[in-house]
Amino acid sequence: MPPLTQTHLYREIHEQPAVLRRLLDEEEATALALADLVRGRAIDHVVIAARGTSDNAGRYAQYVLGAMNGLSVGLAAPSLFTLYQRPPRFGNALVLGISQSGQSPDIVAVLAEARRQGALTAVLTNRPDSPLAEQGDVVFNLCAGDERAVAATKTYTAELAAVALLSVALSGAAEDRAALWAMPDAVAATLSMDEAIAAVAPRYRYMQRCVVIGRGYNYATAFETALKLKELTYTIVEPYSSADFLHGPLAMLEPGFPVIVIAPSGVMAGEAVGFVRTLRERQAEVIAISDDAGVLAAARVPLALPSAAPEWLSPLTAIVPGQLLALHLAHTRDFDVDAPRAIRKVTETV
Amino acid sequence: MPPLTQTHLYREIHEQPAVLRRLLDEEEATALALADLVRGRAIDHVVIAARGTSDNAGRYAQYVLGAMNGLSVGLAAPSLFTLYQRPPRFGNALVLGISQSGQSPDIVAVLAEARRQGALTAVLTNRPDSPLAEQGDVVFNLCAGDERAVAATKTYTAELAAVALLSVALSGAAEDRAALWAMPDAVAATLSMDEAIAAVAPRYRYMQRCVVIGRGYNYATAFETALKLKELTYTIVEPYSSADFLHGPLAMLEPGFPVIVIAPSGVMAGEAVGFVRTLRERQAEVIAISDDAGVLAAARVPLALPSAAPEWLSPLTAIVPGQLLALHLAHTRDFDVDAPRAIRKVTETV
Repeated sequence: MPPLTQTHLYREIHEQPAVLRRLLDEEEATALALADLVRGRAIDHVVIAARGTSDNAGRYAQYVLGAMNGLSVGLAAPSLFTLYQRPPRFGNALVLGISQSGQSPDIVAVLAEARRQGALTAVLTNRPDSPLAEQGDVVFNLCAGDERAVAATKTYTAELAAVALLSVALSGAAEDRAALWAMPDAVAATLSMDEAIAAVAPRYRYMQRCVVIGRGYNYATAFETALKLKELTYTIVEPYSSADFLHGPLAMLEPGFPVIVIAPSGVMAGEAVGFVRTLRERQAEVIAISDDAGVLAAARVPLALPSAAPEWLSPLTAIVPGQLLALHLAHTRDFDVDAPRAIRKVTETV
Repeated sequence: MPPLTQTHLYREIHEQPAVLRRLLDEEEATALALADLVRGRAIDHVVIAARGTSDNAGRYAQYVLGAMNGLSVGLAAPSLFTLYQRPPRFGNALVLGISQSGQSPDIVAVLAEARRQGALTAVLTNRPDSPLAEQGDVVFNLCAGDERAVAATKTYTAELAAVALLSVALSGAAEDRAALWAMPDAVAATLSMDEAIAAVAPRYRYMQRCVVIGRGYNYATAFETALKLKELTYTIVEPYSSADFLHGPLAMLEPGFPVIVIAPSGVMAGEAVGFVRTLRERQAEVIAISDDAGVLAAARVPLALPSAAPEWLSPLTAIVPGQLLALHLAHTRDFDVDAPRAIRKVTETV
């Protein structure tokens, strides 16, 4: 195997600031054009079709477009369009397809049906020449360049940034735009956690299972962190919102059970401190990803984010430690980080 | 501890046919009234607010109301209404709250905001005198009687049946109505699996983790089976659609890894046979819950459903083996099936 720094995955994680800068430069006009169409049609709900990592970007969109732009956002059930062939009515929705490859037949089918019904369609993809892009009235190019590692990293943060671009275009808020434009540097600063995470990864060499908690904007981060750990380290990892975790799954905690809590500063951080204490009373091992001193102090293993972002943009930085932890834990276990067993880059489900 | 047959959980699982009969008798008029309002307002999308087991009934509603009634159904993000206090616009949606206790402050907050915006609201609850019920323009009483075990069983199947009642009221299809009215007997027949499941449960005495797969209408069944196993047996269990599982998590399979595949006969069963074979090529241990001979034959441990239901109603029977497996596995492990450690009946998250 090549040295870790020469793997595609390592390089692609570290390319993220450059990808984000390019995306903000090149795709703002696309966001403004889509925002005009959304306003012109008085659209108030959005249906998102996506799978895997892109579905996690869809979860982020649910919170951002909901809280910042007042849009009701739901995630589509693609099998209604494919296997059952009983598509629901979209009414006056924006239908948004998200896929780095633009190849998944089921996601293409949702967008094709939306277009047939006359709904406004938009696509976020790294392949503007793909079958999915053909179905979009508006197409965002993720500008991420080739992604050669099987596990998606730079296309995920590019998808988040494209959603944030759309949100800013809809709201027109100059302060929010400035905050978004600061994120490539914030992501670059977050990459300085690489060394600390490489040092802590061996502690989890024999971890077989864990839980990842996030809430609100970072519900998506919990799902995506869990997915990277599953894909790369073959651990069984389940994501939860802290609220859902208290509705039952709390029962499975045993002493030493590892729980990764993602809680950057913001509305959710206060609640997170109490949640971490509840976990530690049950002797769970809590790894905290946060820039909040209270959350970090309450954890067994604090992973400090080096900079604070506005909460709505924090998923762009808060995912980075999860990507790095998955990378280094896979490396500690002598797994191939570029080509995990059993999975392919493009998964053609229907 | 009392004998298993004298526990609340055992009794409540076995009460399900009687609860369903009562619900169909008493609540059809409620469903017809709500269907009139939905048609009268030309509603084409539905937002559901729920947590835990009730959220799984919401997943079922997404497929049933989508495929049978052409409605776009999304699940709300309650924290937008509570912690963030930035509720999205509902537009011309039906907003449906589902909660057996009707007590969760976050679900109440979503319905209260919907009413403030002038949206049509409906509630499914076992407590028609609850704070949630106060926010419903239309209120379904689940008619389940007291549910005293902490793990919800009879209120779950009652929630599914209430959703099916609404679907039939919207479509007016006599054939579908007759099929729904046959389900209490089908659930009663499914309870005959109790003995076979009690016999197989000890095989999983030391199982620490597993995956539950379902797709389409039974995506909800996978989530609810996983939740019962987590609550009652403290196993780490993750639910997936087979499509999502192939997008990454397949990597974590090792020889002997237990996978429960829920695939009653219908559109999904053909695909399920191929999926089970893929799992077994990787030497997974596949437990199949199905009435399809092909699916059962491909599994290591077949759990045969005694009767076939139309696929859209099969979640009412297909959940029963999961409830029974969680019951007997908890008993095999000498756990208290009525009061699992660490969780309460009513979880008041905001």
